[in-house]
Formats: sequence, C-alpha cells, structure tokens
Amino acid sequence: RINSDRLWDSIMEMAKIGPGIAGGNNRQTVTDEDGEGRHLFKRWCDAAGLEMGVDEMGTMFARREGTDPSLPPVYVGSHLDTQPTGGKYDGVLGVLGGLEVVRSLNDLGIKTKHPIVVTNWTNEEGARFAPAMMASGVFAGVLEQADVYGHVDKQGKKFGEELERIGWKGSEKVGERKIHAFFELHIEQGPILEDEGIDIGVVTHGQGLKWLQVTLTGKEAHTGSTPMPKRRNAGLGMARVIELVHEIAMDYQPDAVGAVGHMEVFPNSRNIIAGRTVFTIDIRSPEKEVLDAMDGRIREGIDTICEALDIRYEIEQVGAFDPVTFDVGCVKAIRDAAERLGYSHRNIVSGAGHDACWINRVAPTAMVMCPCVDGLSHNEAEEITKEWASAGADVLFHAVVETAVI
Amino acid sequence: RINSDRLWDSIMEMAKIGPGIAGGNNRQTVTDEDGEGRHLFKRWCDAAGLEMGVDEMGTMFARREGTDPSLPPVYVGSHLDTQPTGGKYDGVLGVLGGLEVVRSLNDLGIKTKHPIVVTNWTNEEGARFAPAMMASGVFAGVLEQADVYGHVDKQGKKFGEELERIGWKGSEKVGERKIHAFFELHIEQGPILEDEGIDIGVVTHGQGLKWLQVTLTGKEAHTGSTPMPKRRNAGLGMARVIELVHEIAMDYQPDAVGAVGHMEVFPNSRNIIAGRTVFTIDIRSPEKEVLDAMDGRIREGIDTICEALDIRYEIEQVGAFDPVTFDVGCVKAIRDAAERLGYSHRNIVSGAGHDACWINRVAPTAMVMCPCVDGLSHNEAEEITKEWASAGADVLFHAVVETAVI
Ligand SMILES: NC(=O)NCCC(=O)O
Ligand SMILES: NC(=O)NCCC(=O)O
Repeated sequence: RINSDRLWDSIMEMAKIGPGIAGGNNRQTVTDEDGEGRHLFKRWCDAAGLEMGVDEMGTMFARREGTDPSLPPVYVGSHLDTQPTGGKYDGVLGVLGGLEVVRSLNDLGIKTKHPIVVTNWTNEEGARFAPAMMASGVFAGVLEQADVYGHVDKQGKKFGEELERIGWKGSEKVGERKIHAFFELHIEQGPILEDEGIDIGVVTHGQGLKWLQVTLTGKEAHTGSTPMPKRRNAGLGMARVIELVHEIAMDYQPDAVGAVGHMEVFPNSRNIIAGRTVFTIDIRSPEKEVLDAMDGRIREGIDTICEALDIRYEIEQVGAFDPVTFDVGCVKAIRDAAERLGYSHRNIVSGAGHDACWINRVAPTAMVMCPCVDGLSHNEAEEITKEWASAGADVLFHAVVETAVI
Repeated sequence: RINSDRLWDSIMEMAKIGPGIAGGNNRQTVTDEDGEGRHLFKRWCDAAGLEMGVDEMGTMFARREGTDPSLPPVYVGSHLDTQPTGGKYDGVLGVLGGLEVVRSLNDLGIKTKHPIVVTNWTNEEGARFAPAMMASGVFAGVLEQADVYGHVDKQGKKFGEELERIGWKGSEKVGERKIHAFFELHIEQGPILEDEGIDIGVVTHGQGLKWLQVTLTGKEAHTGSTPMPKRRNAGLGMARVIELVHEIAMDYQPDAVGAVGHMEVFPNSRNIIAGRTVFTIDIRSPEKEVLDAMDGRIREGIDTICEALDIRYEIEQVGAFDPVTFDVGCVKAIRDAAERLGYSHRNIVSGAGHDACWINRVAPTAMVMCPCVDGLSHNEAEEITKEWASAGADVLFHAVVETAVI
C-alpha cells in the first residue's frame, strides 16, 4: 500500500501555490503560478531520483528507470493546472498519486522491468486557452502544435508565448515517446460513487464532447428610446440559445448534458441593447449519435432564433472529442487491483474529459476514479477524504506495478 | 438664427477627445478623457466671456450675466460624458447648443434680463457608475451626494474619488442655485422624427424607468460530470429572466420597453456551470401604472424561475425615475419658437432619461429634440445632419431668449 499521509501532505503543499479566494486554487495553465507548481513537482521528482524530460508543449515526464531500459515505459499521471475557481484535487491527485507510486516503489526497494514515467500534461482544463486536454491532444496527434500555440486567452495573449514566458517550453518533440500503457487516477467530479458508497470507479468509457463558440451580431441601440420591434438584441439571442441548449440536453438526459458557462456581452452597458455576444456551448454524451444529433438540433435552433431576432451568427467548434472506450487490458488491471485490495468498485463512465481520453488513441489506457464530496468539482469547495485518495492511489499502484512487471 | 457651422465644428472638435473604435466616442464620466473634454469646454466658455462655477458633483455652470443680475438665470445644457461605445451627439449637442446660444447672443450684441447659464451635468449616462443622471439627481434632491460618492465601477473605483482624481470636484454646494427655467436640446435617440420627416420634437413627457440589478446564486459545478437534475445553473436562470423581461415588455409595448444590457458571469469558464450571475434589467414606460405592473410581474417571475432552478436571488433597485410631465410654459416656448422659425414639429415623449427629467422637479423645464439617423443612439454609428442640429439649436435659442427676456 502507498503512504497515504505523504500523498495527502503533498496535495496540501501543492494547494498553497495559486490559492483561490474560497479555499481552492487558481493555478491556470502557463501562468506564473503554474510555473511555480511545476518547480515544486520537479523538486519532488529530483528527490525521488527521477529524470525529468519536458516537451515542446511543456508536458513534464519524470522517469524512474526500469531493469530493462529498452522497454517502453508505463506512464502514470494527470495535470497540475486548475480552473480559475478550481479545487485542490482535480488533476493534482493524479499527478501526485503517480509520484506516490514511484515513492512507494523506492521505499519498498521494488524494481520494475518497464520504466515508469510520471506525467504532468499541460493545459488540461482549457479554461484560459481552449481546447481542454491541449498537450495530450497534440501528443496524440489530434491537435496541431503550431495551431494551438496561436490560441489566445481573453487578454489576447498567445498560448505558445506564455509557455515560453514561464520558462517551461521544453525541446523534446511532442508525441515521439513510446507508451507501454497509461494510467490516470482522477476524482469522479460527479456524485455516483459517493451516493452508492463505493470506493473505486473502474472507468470503462468516457463521454464525448463538443464546444461550440457562438458569436451573435445584432445592433447596439438605446434601451429606452428604441421601439421593441426595431431591436436586434444579441443578448436576447444568447438567452434563447442558452435555454435551447438546456432543453435539448434535458431531452437526451441521462445520456447527455449541456450548458453555457462562458459568456461575453458587448458593450455590456445597462442602457445599451447588446450589439454582440460571444459564448461557448458545452454538450456531452457517451453516445456519438446523441452528440451529433444534439449538435444538429442546436445549429438548427440557432438559425431559427437568429432569424426571428434579425441577428447574424457564427459558430466555431473550439473543442471536440468522440466518446472513448478504454483499453480492456488496462481496465482489467484496475478492476483486478481493486478486487485484490478489497475495495468496493463499479464500472463507471467519465463525465469529464481527461488526458487519458486522448492518450487512449495512441496507447493502452485506463483510469481509476475515487469519489468526491457531493459530486462537486470545478468549484473551490471541491473536497475528498484522505481515505478515498489513498484507496485510489493504492489501486493505481497495483495496476501500474502489475503492468510494468516486477 | 445661430451659427450652424460654428456649432458643428465645435461638436467635431469635442469628438476628438476620447475617440471610440468605430467613429464614435468613449468619454465615460470622470475618466481622464472626461477631464480633457471639460477643459476644452471651459476654454470655449472663457473665450465667450462666461464665468465658470463647478459644484461638488462636478457639474459645470458657465454664466452670462443678465441686465438684472439679481434675477434667477435661465439654464441651458446637457452632458458631455458618453457611453463606452457612444455617439458624438448624445448630450454633446445639448451642451454645445447651449454654448452656441450665448455665442450667438454675443455676436448679435443681445443682452437678456435674466442671466443665462450653460451647464454640463456630470454622469448623465450612468454607464460607468449607476444611476444615470446622477448629478442632476443630486441637484434635484432625489439622490444623496454622500451615497453616490460611494458608488463603484466594475473595477471597484469610487465615483467620489474618481471625480476628485480628475480635478473636477468643485466647492459649490449642490442644488442651491435658483433656476428660472431649464431647457435641454437632445437628439431623439429614437426613429419617430426621421420616419415622419419632422424637424423638431416638442418634448411634452418623459418615460419613467427602473433599473433592477439582479444577483443569482447557484452552484459552480462541472459541465461534463454534473447530472442535469443536480445542477443549480445561475447562467440558465439569467437567460430565463432575460426572456421574461422581453416578454413582459412585448405585452405592454408600444407603451413599454425592456431589456438586459449588462451581464456578468462567474467564474465564466467554458466547463463550469455558472455559480453566480449579476445583471441589470432596464424597464421603461410613460405610464407609472405600467412601470409598476411590469416591476411586479418581473419580481414574481424571478421568484418562480429561481424556485424551479433551486437558485437564490437578490434584487436591488439601482436607478429609477417616474414618468415626467414637462412644464406647460416651457413646452409652449419651444413650440412657439419652432412655429415662428417655420420648422415642422410634433409633440413627442422622450424614450430616454435626461437631466431635464430631474431638473423638472425643481424648476420649469422642457426639452427640444432633433432627429437622428435610423433612431440609432448608444452606438458609435449615431449620426445626425448639420441641418437637424442647427434647427434644434435655433429653436433652443429662441425659447431661451424668449424666457430670459430681452
Ligand atoms: N477533468 C476535467 O475537468 N477536465 C477538463 C475538461 C472537461 O471540461 O472535461
Ligand atoms: N439620454 C440618454 O441616453 N440618457 C442616458 C440615461 C438613459 O438610459 O436613458
């Protein structure tokens, strides 16, 4: 079993970097705080005798040598970046859980045949720069490095330039590593495990996603003196699209979810009818047909809404991944580990996207989940217990060691 | 008749200060640009031999002496502040039209019995700091100076401190001046005069207004892994309130308008369900009963919407004025002037709020309106013709001189 005090202390130590305003974290990707978090992680990896590699997307790879260095490593990890109002565990548990796996191997003097590499994937959250899971997406060959370097945040800063600015743009080409298998431990971010009192989620599938960024263009005009029939209200248009997305998601639930979390209004003045709004629709489903059907209905609905309001629209897909089926062998390794350790477990579908979803395309991959209080995530109040964290890390440890072979 | 070239040139000169990004202006109240605009206006007033007074709200009063200095002055003016994406004429035409009145009196060597005072009221727009018509509201005794000094903009800066910072907080107590009559020239900001091909709007009434700032509190949560029935979506709540306001306004139109132009979303991330939204409802009607009925239906509707979504709400009234009936004598002075000058004219209700609406409570007041292209205002593309401007200023000139008595 892993050292659960050490794992917990490390998580609490990391949480001191980029503190939020309500007990959580604001350590968004390629900010100064992200840089600081990376330095702390590197110091821990150095102390554990790992060798650090950094690729051109800034992803960190900390290697523990195997008895046969020519074999492809088993990878284990997640991400250290957070939402602007994020929790202490989302991503962090997976990276530091991976670190705890090698620390425990060191403690026990266990050598594995395959090397083991602990990873911190850059920009998993996609909060500052769309899309989410950016670096793992480039690694898996589904996103273009040159393209995502040019993606901008709300201040117009470029991802590539910010990565360079914080000093974490490595020289290693992205995606050239051979991966024997990849394991990611993550909090569930949903309520199922806690509701059912189950220790371990064996993740068999992941939902697919689409992010549609919509720009509506109406006409700025006075809220007082512009007659109702003369208005071309881009704010009202946005409101109707938000309702539309909700209704469509309700039609397909529990096999779908949908919401708009990002909205911008121009010029955003109390007495000006909005002339332009920009917002992002987030729709997800474990069924590709459902996702495509939702996408189609949303596009049709936007067309109808805009026609009625005499406003123009543009729709840009700024993120997308198909539903994922994880590797049968890796999933079995996780289920067997939970069984062997005596933890209660069940199969589960990941509601969120994860780096594992992209890496699954280029290597056998699976995920372990542990419960989180009230299913709450992407909220500073995100919480887990030390016991949940250590059960998850125990399962991760056994699955990794099993796969890396003693 | 006034000198229409000089009036137009002055408007164009003022428009150079705080230029917008699309041909209009961004000269928001108590910004550096507002300060610069005030200095230019003061230089023009000095050159015209006027004596400048500034009160504790920053309102500028430029006085041309009367033959009987003991008589209360006739006031004429409007405001020089603009929306963040405002036009070149909204407010400016009224201030510089007032200046043109005294410049023309100087040219013609006409002395009036009553002094004439040209005014620039501080923060008419209410864009940076709610409410609109702030300084005239304090002058009329309906707003508290100490209170509005503490109102903050989106950056948390206080109105009173910003007024001091730009150097335009005067020492004169607000509201102590005696006003014989007040006249304000303004662009219509609506489509009626242009549509009907009429030169002059004789403003008999003004719409009443309410600004309700609503804060909705739900729960930040992951857009992917939070089941639909578990969501407490403050963004969806906002969307429903925007639709509600629109529907209620449609029920009462053409006797009402309603919209939401100001919206803020927290934390505003693509994959976080909004935990909090803050937005301002703007409803207006020339009938107090209609305004009150709308207010009641909106509050009830918000309650129902929030109950269904399991979110909390707070409603704060951040601006309000009752419908206005302007002074019969002053209105007649304007109608007579238009008639005498041979301009086509009609009675009109102001759709927007104006400083005249507040001053009407403490002194006989009326307004002159001229058309604007396509009824468009609160838009950088706001446009009027030189002929429309000069017709409005001619009528203003005659009404003022008539009232100030030669
Ligand atoms: N796990 C997680 O929160 N990932 C961010 C990408 C997403 O929105 O699913
Ligand atoms: N005239 C004008 O645009 N005033 C601003 C206050 C309002 O919103 O009516």
